[in-house]
Amino acid sequence: MHVVVTLSAAEAQPWMDLFCEALPGARVVRREPGHPVEDAESPADYVVLAEPCRTVFDAQPSPKAVFTASAGVGHLLRVPNLPRDVPVVRLEDAGMAGPMSRYVLAAALRFSQRMDVYARQQHARCWDQQHEHAPRELRAGVLGLGVIGGAIAAALVGQGFAVRGYAMTERRLEGVECFAGRDRLDAFLDGVDFLVNALPLTPATTGLLDAERLARLADGAHVVNVGRGRTLVDADLLALIDSGKLSGATLDVFTEEPPPHVSGLTVPADAVAQIAAKIGRLERGEAVTGLLDRERGY
Amino acid sequence: MHVVVTLSAAEAQPWMDLFCEALPGARVVRREPGHPVEDAESPADYVVLAEPCRTVFDAQPSPKAVFTASAGVGHLLRVPNLPRDVPVVRLEDAGMAGPMSRYVLAAALRFSQRMDVYARQQHARCWDQQHEHAPRELRAGVLGLGVIGGAIAAALVGQGFAVRGYAMTERRLEGVECFAGRDRLDAFLDGVDFLVNALPLTPATTGLLDAERLARLADGAHVVNVGRGRTLVDADLLALIDSGKLSGATLDVFTEEPPPHVSGLTVPADAVAQIAAKIGRLERGEAVTGLLDRERGY
Repeated sequence: MHVVVTLSAAEAQPWMDLFCEALPGARVVRREPGHPVEDAESPADYVVLAEPCRTVFDAQPSPKAVFTASAGVGHLLRVPNLPRDVPVVRLEDAGMAGPMSRYVLAAALRFSQRMDVYARQQHARCWDQQHEHAPRELRAGVLGLGVIGGAIAAALVGQGFAVRGYAMTERRLEGVECFAGRDRLDAFLDGVDFLVNALPLTPATTGLLDAERLARLADGAHVVNVGRGRTLVDADLLALIDSGKLSGATLDVFTEEPPPHVSGLTVPADAVAQIAAKIGRLERGEAVTGLLDRERGY
Repeated sequence: MHVVVTLSAAEAQPWMDLFCEALPGARVVRREPGHPVEDAESPADYVVLAEPCRTVFDAQPSPKAVFTASAGVGHLLRVPNLPRDVPVVRLEDAGMAGPMSRYVLAAALRFSQRMDVYARQQHARCWDQQHEHAPRELRAGVLGLGVIGGAIAAALVGQGFAVRGYAMTERRLEGVECFAGRDRLDAFLDGVDFLVNALPLTPATTGLLDAERLARLADGAHVVNVGRGRTLVDADLLALIDSGKLSGATLDVFTEEPPPHVSGLTVPADAVAQIAAKIGRLERGEAVTGLLDRERGY
């Protein structure tokens, strides 16, 4: 078996070691992202995009499957010669769901305990006791109920928040009131105190959270974005915070992105183990999860 | 039955309504804290100190039991004429354990996610990605394993922290490595990354967390105090933060106390229900929990 991994030299360790260890007997070759085609590039069974690369498919027009080492696939869908009929498999959760749930839970507890208010008081050296918002009295809403959104919803349920969730298709999650489909989005948003975006970025989710939709949230609501920056209209969010409608936001992603993402980093060992296990399943003719639906865009 | 409640007029609602409702048929009388004895004060079956009061026992030398509406009893032990042989019952948990666990959990998640580092970066407008300390790799230590300390330890276990606990006497808590007795204190402290104090204030715990004991913690450790301010030597804590040995602290209590406590407020309805239920048990000749051990001081 022959596997090509797009990965720049600077990042090659420990990924290549992990791939070689996880795929014994396979020929695992690193390809520099963006590098033009060389004559020597023989056809691979599998292509793994550990880093985005626009040239790999010039040399690999028909692998058995393409894997990404990230949950997001936007970069891949913009590659002009991505083979049309090859299955594309995204990373579903490679250690990110736990950290991302904790990131959101920390923001939720901070909000319920009014810590932003106390931080301002501390700065002003004044002390005015605020009542905690009991989690059961706070309506938390999670947009996106995939592996990551589902884990976030479960973490909030575990701390007693009143959790609702929204997905394009029907879902069932313990303790979560689920809303499905675009015509239920407004009902989902109405009166939410703590909104978490964990949607993928697609044409349908770009600019989804604009002034009109955010205005449906409860007065004083808090917005968390751990999905993609362009799902939330930054300027609309800021205007609603300035007007006092929203009390604040916890943003791990932005439309313009200088800061790093910190809510959940990919754990290389987990990512490689997941990809190697799926290659094993495909080799045995078994189904894999995390297949990209090109029409939906995720 | 006759119950005297020490409670200033400003605070009387909703406590008195709750007591009257919870003790139907009883004569429930409010007494202004610090008010001198009046001839009219008839002997009560039970005294409830909803607020500290140094004069109530001048009029009530021998109630069947004394209740406090707080977990701490330090104020009561300093009342000179507290009847010697009357059982004193402290509030064990009246809605505080949940909020206090969430307060500590928020601090633990903030620490594990390096949010203090990011807050400084945000201020300086620079972004340098920090690796999350995975909870399972963080040794969290809880000093005091009563109702509140036990709930805090359970909340930390629930998020995957490696939790150890310390109490004067043997305890068993699911998922918690328990240390018992003063000669095990140093072993408990050694290498702890996230220390939580939930001990009562007694002569034995006053100044317990001094420079020598705090130096046993792991480099970069974080200290949380939700117990009593005087258990922690503030100056020693600050010196260890300034030296870089400790990375920070989350303090809800202080030696000198202008700020309010915010980690867990008593919920009047829960406190009154607990006290009324215990009065019912005592009237039926049954045992109650939360009895003050005057020798230990809690």
